[in-house]
Amino acid sequence: MVFQERFQFETAGHGDMHDITSRVEEAIARSSIQTGTAHIFNVGSTGVVLGIEFESGLMKDLPELINRLIPPSLAYNHEEAWHDGNAHSHLQASWLGQELTVPVTEGRPVLGTWQQIVHLECDIKPRTRYLVVTVMGE
Amino acid sequence: MVFQERFQFETAGHGDMHDITSRVEEAIARSSIQTGTAHIFNVGSTGVVLGIEFESGLMKDLPELINRLIPPSLAYNHEEAWHDGNAHSHLQASWLGQELTVPVTEGRPVLGTWQQIVHLECDIKPRTRYLVVTVMGE
Amino acid sequence: MVFQERFQFETAGHGDMHDITSRVEEAIARSSIQTGTAHIFNVGSTGVVLGIEFESGLMKDLPELINRLIPPSLAYNHEEAWHDGNAHSHLQASWLGQELTVPVTEGRPVLGTWQQIVHLECDIKPRTRYLVVTVMGE
Repeated sequence: MVFQERFQFETAGHGDMHDITSRVEEAIARSSIQTGTAHIFNVGSTGVVLGIEFESGLMKDLPELINRLIPPSLAYNHEEAWHDGNAHSHLQASWLGQELTVPVTEGRPVLGTWQQIVHLECDIKPRTRYLVVTVMGE
Repeated sequence: MVFQERFQFETAGHGDMHDITSRVEEAIARSSIQTGTAHIFNVGSTGVVLGIEFESGLMKDLPELINRLIPPSLAYNHEEAWHDGNAHSHLQASWLGQELTVPVTEGRPVLGTWQQIVHLECDIKPRTRYLVVTVMGE
Repeated sequence: MVFQERFQFETAGHGDMHDITSRVEEAIARSSIQTGTAHIFNVGSTGVVLGIEFESGLMKDLPELINRLIPPSLAYNHEEAWHDGNAHSHLQASWLGQELTVPVTEGRPVLGTWQQIVHLECDIKPRTRYLVVTVMGE
């Protein structure tokens, strides 16, 4: 069995993080699938989906970390060609990853207590984000 | 068809690496699935599952690398709030990734000769780790 | 339903990038699967599959970035043991990831306009790369 749905939300620009765990839980519930996997995908190359503890400290630490290692201020070839100011956004999101798969057991995602499914905006301006959740199993 | 099982093991703290390829092979064999995928997931946000050559050199290099780029010694907001000394563990494991999917062909995972399925402990103390393997296909 | 196929191509050595989106589209078309996921896997531990905008600027920026953060010139334990000059290749590819899953809708991969499925060579010499595409769904 396969069940797929989309949802969307607004982000506030670089570093904005959204806990999307409940959205994924709802999609799994609607699928009626008890055992399998749920795949969550960000449509677009500058948004990230990952597993992290969703708490206010890490919500500052993660954007700071990626801007320290992949800084907006470097001279990028992408910037030289396109002048849209978001070369670092592309590099950050491609490295961190635009998708995540979690197991489904008894109709729910299997997660640790401090492990949430989170969207991280890497683009430099507010975006409408479209996510695709695909639940497979039986 | 879907087959799911859990297994657990003890880790020795930060940087400890375990080759879990044979555990995944066994799960696939028990599933009787010949063609599809196997998804391996670390329950908890400070443990990593990845593909790497499991040999003693890289077993030192990878923990050194992640501690160089995401050092324990920085001032993290997570640490300021929670004082559990593992902010870097969260950031490392969220970036490296807590899950991996590999293809299954003829009832076995498809891997290169020097490509193993490996668990990396990013937390600072020994942990009991719970992994979920989900095999899907036919 | 599950459909699996392999394809291969030659790379030119470190930093060489190939847009493999059309290969994945063709596999999905051959599978006749309309809704589900496609999983793309690099057999071998020094090649990467990721989502990125495939354009000439980022094709220089990404290899430069990973060589800046995980440089070929450091003293690695892997190098000391094996002397094959590619310790950084292993570390880069294990961190960036050797596989990607994308959703399939109406018989096509769901991707943003500037989001392609791309292979990145991290090994230091030209390689023949074998990729496995597994399409699952209905």
